[in-house]
Amino acid sequence: MGRVVVDVMPKPEILDPQGKAVAGSLPRLGFGQFVGVRQGKRFELEVEGDVTQEHLDAAREAGVQVLSNPVIEDVVAVYADTAAVQA
Amino acid sequence: MGRVVVDVMPKPEILDPQGKAVAGSLPRLGFGQFVGVRQGKRFELEVEGDVTQEHLDAAREAGVQVLSNPVIEDVVAVYADTAAVQA
Repeated sequence: MGRVVVDVMPKPEILDPQGKAVAGSLPRLGFGQFVGVRQGKRFELEVEGDVTQEHLDAAREAGVQVLSNPVIEDVVAVYADTAAVQA
Repeated sequence: MGRVVVDVMPKPEILDPQGKAVAGSLPRLGFGQFVGVRQGKRFELEVEGDVTQEHLDAAREAGVQVLSNPVIEDVVAVYADTAAVQA
């Protein structure tokens, strides 16, 4: 089994209240080195056999059409996950 | 500004209803090549200056302590985002 990762993030100009909440709590918890946080989504899509370019192209298309809201989110990365996947 | 990415996914043995819902809809929308979907979270943590090993270590610690629920989620990746970041 192969696996394709699709990363979706809120567009830079869109307010990200979840990220803001995390950014506000990190300094109180001892992580003051992080000055900003944005929270997005990570999808793992499993395919039969090895990941091909067709899979990557389809995953990007699915990312735009299904996995993200193009009004407020961007598909920022699509890549084959090279970590071993248990079948 | 540097950026550290922390990826959090539901543990393999944990049911992922969001992923299941996406997996069920993809074939109907023409993406039958994807036989399974898991949905997790992607955090982008901004730091002043370049990303150092200390930043990566702190980001992993923040991932475990703050960004994930260790009972049901794993921090699956922590890495410096090499894409250009607008200051």
